[in-house]
Amino acid sequence: MGEFELLARIRERLPAPGARVRLGMGDDAAIAVPGGATATSVDAIVEGVHFRREHGLAAIGHKALATALSDLAAMGAEPGEAYAVLGVPADLGEDECLELLDGMLALAEETGTTLAGGDVTRAPALTVAMTVVGHAASPELLVTRAGAQSGDALVLTGEIGGAAAGLLLLERPELAAGLGPETAERLRERQLRPRPLLAAGRALARAGATAMIDLSDGIAGDARRLAEESGAAMRIEADALPLSEGLAEVASAAGRDPLELAVSGGEDYELLAALPAQRLDAAVSAAGEAGVALTQVGEVATGEDVVEIRLPGGGLLKASGFDQLR
Amino acid sequence: MGEFELLARIRERLPAPGARVRLGMGDDAAIAVPGGATATSVDAIVEGVHFRREHGLAAIGHKALATALSDLAAMGAEPGEAYAVLGVPADLGEDECLELLDGMLALAEETGTTLAGGDVTRAPALTVAMTVVGHAASPELLVTRAGAQSGDALVLTGEIGGAAAGLLLLERPELAAGLGPETAERLRERQLRPRPLLAAGRALARAGATAMIDLSDGIAGDARRLAEESGAAMRIEADALPLSEGLAEVASAAGRDPLELAVSGGEDYELLAALPAQRLDAAVSAAGEAGVALTQVGEVATGEDVVEIRLPGGGLLKASGFDQLR
Repeated sequence: MGEFELLARIRERLPAPGARVRLGMGDDAAIAVPGGATATSVDAIVEGVHFRREHGLAAIGHKALATALSDLAAMGAEPGEAYAVLGVPADLGEDECLELLDGMLALAEETGTTLAGGDVTRAPALTVAMTVVGHAASPELLVTRAGAQSGDALVLTGEIGGAAAGLLLLERPELAAGLGPETAERLRERQLRPRPLLAAGRALARAGATAMIDLSDGIAGDARRLAEESGAAMRIEADALPLSEGLAEVASAAGRDPLELAVSGGEDYELLAALPAQRLDAAVSAAGEAGVALTQVGEVATGEDVVEIRLPGGGLLKASGFDQLR
Repeated sequence: MGEFELLARIRERLPAPGARVRLGMGDDAAIAVPGGATATSVDAIVEGVHFRREHGLAAIGHKALATALSDLAAMGAEPGEAYAVLGVPADLGEDECLELLDGMLALAEETGTTLAGGDVTRAPALTVAMTVVGHAASPELLVTRAGAQSGDALVLTGEIGGAAAGLLLLERPELAAGLGPETAERLRERQLRPRPLLAAGRALARAGATAMIDLSDGIAGDARRLAEESGAAMRIEADALPLSEGLAEVASAAGRDPLELAVSGGEDYELLAALPAQRLDAAVSAAGEAGVALTQVGEVATGEDVVEIRLPGGGLLKASGFDQLR
């Protein structure tokens, strides 16, 4: 396999770029005419760290783009361009690279994202580094992590813990014994094929979200990031947290606490947002129109860099987020 | 070392972003207000493939950004923002990561580039994936690989072969026996600390370059890319090629042909451009003002996807470019 043959085969598969991209893959750089404001995020996933090859190459391409786009969802940005660098180990063939690409391109098409550039290089482990660029008419329309105000409601899309349960099922298939096959499959898909909540992110931005983050490291760790950047405290009620169906059974089979798994397990890619309490009903409706359930899970309080996850009995849950380097 | 402690230490080192960047590293995405057109390029360098750690971590950070910015130079773009993803192996400490970053930041400052975002992740080999965004007032001002016209002069900045000779010296220090120490050091620096020719690229764009590329894979392979994209033939006169001082001695000591090393050795990061013959004098002056010598090395002719490197005796040189996956 040669670099240039592979790049040529990749270029053949790309659809024509949208109006914003004037020149796509194949030159020294891609040319775009952004207008307004851009939100740019970079990310990489590495074999053995973030995925295993046996779960399918298309799923790897999907996950690389999905987790990158999730950062744009958390800004309330409209997805625009994506750029991919593929680190290819010697035992991965050209057809496998294209299978990975096809998984990425399917999600790109579904989300209206243009794969506008990329490169391939040799690497000891399969690596996909993604850059995604999102757009908004002006920078003020993008939602950072820094604006949460004391008194804001803390809301969460969807359910958490599913990706962590799915990972346990992939690593130890025997844990699925107490689950229906559809529930088990749904949990594995949560881990392998996360969904970037782009429409929900834009809906929450329009509904007045003051701060927002996507849950890549678990709600305990990611709420802490909101708290740090906003200079506020996040008070989360443990019994308000919506837990994925099947999580309790998997946790029990694995001898783990389901709540601890839900709050410290990463990769759910749900959105956690703060917004004024009087906007709560409007936000629930707007998220519903984007196909996503929205639950109030707590509130923002005065304080610095504090996250409290309150147990029904009155105690506090100790929990930590997933750290990429530990 | 933890991911978040390292990211916090990285953020502490970043200078305040320029006017275009409204929000730098530390949120889900960076926010910028580009205006005009953007040129975006992605690239990755991997330990054992593109560099060795023993040559210094600051040099690795420098090289990652330099080679990425070189793509912007080849578009004639003004450098803007850079985003870095660091893949960190378990045996690399936090201070070493920061040393790498410092090498990158020194070049960022020198070139007016804002490191606007990034991430760190675990990886089996030290990997630096870079995304760079350059700017121009409109897309028409950016120079692609596709516009070379039959009759255009083919011009080259600086000298070639130095990076390949430098690599030989790093791998086999005994080859430096016939060189002065300053010449040997200059060749090694060509390999370890390439310079992105940003001012020269903009000067060539303004002088009317019809197509341009930076030499990452060697002039033989990169001229072929110009030929393919422009649908033209590139005729290069071998004896017009400016070869780096010391290349002949290193090639001779290594039993290699200096011309073959110069045309097929990669990583010189000089610019190869086509421009109308009547603009040649103006281009030489403009490049000179940007501190770079410009040499006519051939011309563009009718034909498809053809590169000829003509030897003084009348024959043609067979040469191939560096392929990242072979």
